[in-house]
Parts: sequence; C-alpha cells; structure tokens
Amino acid sequence: MSVDGTPHETTASAEDVRELLGLLAYTQLTASLRYAHDAGATDVLSRRLAFAELAAQEHGRLTVLREHIDQTGGDSLNLLRRYHGVFDEYESRTHADSWHERILKGYIGHSVALDFCRIAVSTAPGVTRELVTTLLVDDRAQDLARDVLEAKITDDHTFASRLALWGRRVVGEALGQVQQVVSREPALARLLSGGAAGSGFTPDSTAPTDEDKQLMAWLYAQLTAEHSRRMDRLGLAA
Amino acid sequence: MSVDGTPHETTASAEDVRELLGLLAYTQLTASLRYAHDAGATDVLSRRLAFAELAAQEHGRLTVLREHIDQTGGDSLNLLRRYHGVFDEYESRTHADSWHERILKGYIGHSVALDFCRIAVSTAPGVTRELVTTLLVDDRAQDLARDVLEAKITDDHTFASRLALWGRRVVGEALGQVQQVVSREPALARLLSGGAAGSGFTPDSTAPTDEDKQLMAWLYAQLTAEHSRRMDRLGLAA
Repeated sequence: MSVDGTPHETTASAEDVRELLGLLAYTQLTASLRYAHDAGATDVLSRRLAFAELAAQEHGRLTVLREHIDQTGGDSLNLLRRYHGVFDEYESRTHADSWHERILKGYIGHSVALDFCRIAVSTAPGVTRELVTTLLVDDRAQDLARDVLEAKITDDHTFASRLALWGRRVVGEALGQVQQVVSREPALARLLSGGAAGSGFTPDSTAPTDEDKQLMAWLYAQLTAEHSRRMDRLGLAA
Repeated sequence: MSVDGTPHETTASAEDVRELLGLLAYTQLTASLRYAHDAGATDVLSRRLAFAELAAQEHGRLTVLREHIDQTGGDSLNLLRRYHGVFDEYESRTHADSWHERILKGYIGHSVALDFCRIAVSTAPGVTRELVTTLLVDDRAQDLARDVLEAKITDDHTFASRLALWGRRVVGEALGQVQQVVSREPALARLLSGGAAGSGFTPDSTAPTDEDKQLMAWLYAQLTAEHSRRMDRLGLAA
C-alpha cells in the first residue's frame, strides 16, 4: 500500500507479463479444442452449434493474444511451447465419466485459470490489462454451462449431488494445478505477488508460515470464493 | 446448350440453392469440429496450432454461410437440422486406425464434398456463386495435409501403400455418401443436373441407362478425377 492508503500500483516487467499472456494463450487454445470436443460429443444440434461457437470464440482470443505478444516484442510460439502440456496432469487426474461432468469440469477449470490470470494481470501496463480484461469476459461460456446443467440439476437430486461432489474434486485439482504452475514459473509468482498486494493482501510477519505460503493461502481463498459463487449460480453446493 | 453453342445458364431456384448452402454449412461445421479433434490428437504444438487454425477458419465459413442464408430469406438453423447426422453412416464405415489415416480421410471426404458443392452451385445466382467459390478455396487444408503426410509417405513405402489403400476405401465411401444425399434431396439433384449441363454433360438418349444414372456416372467421373489429382500431389496412388 502507498502512504496515503490507496493501493500501490507496481508495474510488472514486460517479460513477466508476456509469460502470463503465454499461459493465457495456451489456456485459450486448450479451451477452444475442449469446446469443439464438447460440441462433437452432443447430438443436440443447437448445443453442438453453441459449443462450436465458443470454440471459435476462444480461438479468436488466442489469435488476438498472439498478435499482441508478437507486436510487443515477444514470441508467442515460444511462449506457447513453454506451456505446452501444462494441463496434462490435471487432465489425467480428472477423467469425466459423462458429457455433463465434462462440461462442468471444463467450466470450473477454465474459470479458475481465468480468475488467476485476472489477479496476476492487474499490475501489467494499462493496454495489456485492458486487453486481457476484455478477453476474459466469459458470459457465454457461463450461460451455456448453466443452460446445459441447470435443468438436469433441478430435476434430479441424485445427479445434482454427484455433480457437486465432482465439482469439488475438479476445483481441488485445478487449485493444485495453479500452485504447480506458479511454483514452476517465477515470473507468474512475481505477478501474483504484485496483483495480491494491489488487492489487499499484506503478509503477516508474525505468522508461523512464510510469505509465499501466506500468498498461496490468500490466492486459494480468492479462487475458492469465486468458484463458490459460480457453483451457487448453478444451484450446486460448492 | 443454347443455340449459339455457349453453355446455357439456367438459374436455379432460391429454395434449391438454399438446400445446397445448408449442406455446405453442415459440412463446414463438421470439418471445423474434425480439425479441432485432429489438433487435440497431436502433441506436436505447431501442428496442433495449424489444425486449430483450420478449425476456426471452417467455423468462420459456417458463420458467413449462415448469415448469407438468413439474410436472403432462409432459416439456416432449420437447414442445418435437415442435414444433421448426414455423415454419420460414412463416419461409422470409415473408422481410422491412426492419426495419419484420420487426416487423409478428413482431407479426402471434405474435398469430395466441396467438389460436389462446386458443381452444384454453378447455376446459383452470381452473388451466391461468388460467395461459395471464395469459401471453397481450401489451400491451407491441402497444404497442411500434404505437410503432415508427405514426409511419412516418402520415407516409408509400406506406410504409403497402406495409406493409398485406405484412400481408395475412403473415396469409395465418400462417393456413396454423395449419391445417398443426392437421391434423398431432390433440390440437390436438380442443382447437380443444372451444373452438369453447364459443364458439358449431355445425356445420351440411346444409352441403355437412364438419364439419372448417366448423370451419376458423370458426377463420379468428375469427383474421381479431382480425387486422383489430389492423391497424385500427395504422392499416393489413387
């Protein structure tokens, strides 16, 4: 915090910000292919079209991000390479048994990733921050997940409680995934630290855990709170 | 033919043309999801990106077509519904055993469908014809298929002959699929007949087979010739 009590805006380094954009671009690529897969896995044409539309939207965002990276002195292909495979372990640990489980898993995982990016991007230069904020609006994905899941959740209590359980497992794995990426990439850890400082996180030097652990606990609390709000809106216990 | 020997341009009915655009739109939707699947099924990042790009391109074409249909008095969703599932039987009869087989199959099947559309659209009004002709340029798909398959074909003769065999099976199924759709949809049969007349097909009234069968034989010859040229360019025996 600055002396007058307003959040102190530290400006992140261009290299660190590019790392984040690389992660975000890879996340959009993965989401695009996942939505296309979801589209192909339903025989209901209106849903197939809606998911295909989302897939195209995510690919459009990937393209915008890559252009931004490349035009600001970065190398988007190299950055994507760095994150290639980053979600593989998460994927292998969260094998969905049904189309609805897949939809919920995709929605939860993608939302957690975007929430993380929102926090981490907050100390990036204004242009990048605005670009990312625009790209991260995810109303259509949310509306579609709700549309697909809500009717089944309302009608079938057994299904709803199984799905709630599945949601808890998925979010646990997603949080673990975030922690892994942050500890692997110092640039992301720095951005997170800056973003957290701007959002009210102040380390407690008298606490028994070190600052990194406190930061992670703070991040988990933020991500979990957003997750709970989303599950609430779906009518699922978080 | 007109009296002065130039091709007689019959103008197809708007309803018939819309049927064709519906089929084409559904073909683009299917291609988009297939390319996305191909992208997800390779771990080579540059290829994953290239196929994801193709998927987005096909979805963009679907969107352009739907807008054109809806703005010219049609109902694109209804038209897509009419063709929903039309490739299911073809799909179930051509299960690819490897990623390379999948790529070749997709390339062959999609190319045959587009060649058919090119012939059938030739009596459509100028605006529609130009739109479709622009949309049907498929250089990137062709370049990518070649890029993916060529190295393996050149290096591995056993692989090349297995792939050539597979290509013959796929094109056979694709031609059967075309025939099925044409016989199911009178609008497409009328467009094909008009397009064939404009491309030099003249039924032989002294022949032992009726005009429909002659038309189909002519169509098969056109589609097979294009297919052979494509296989040649890949270095595969058609």
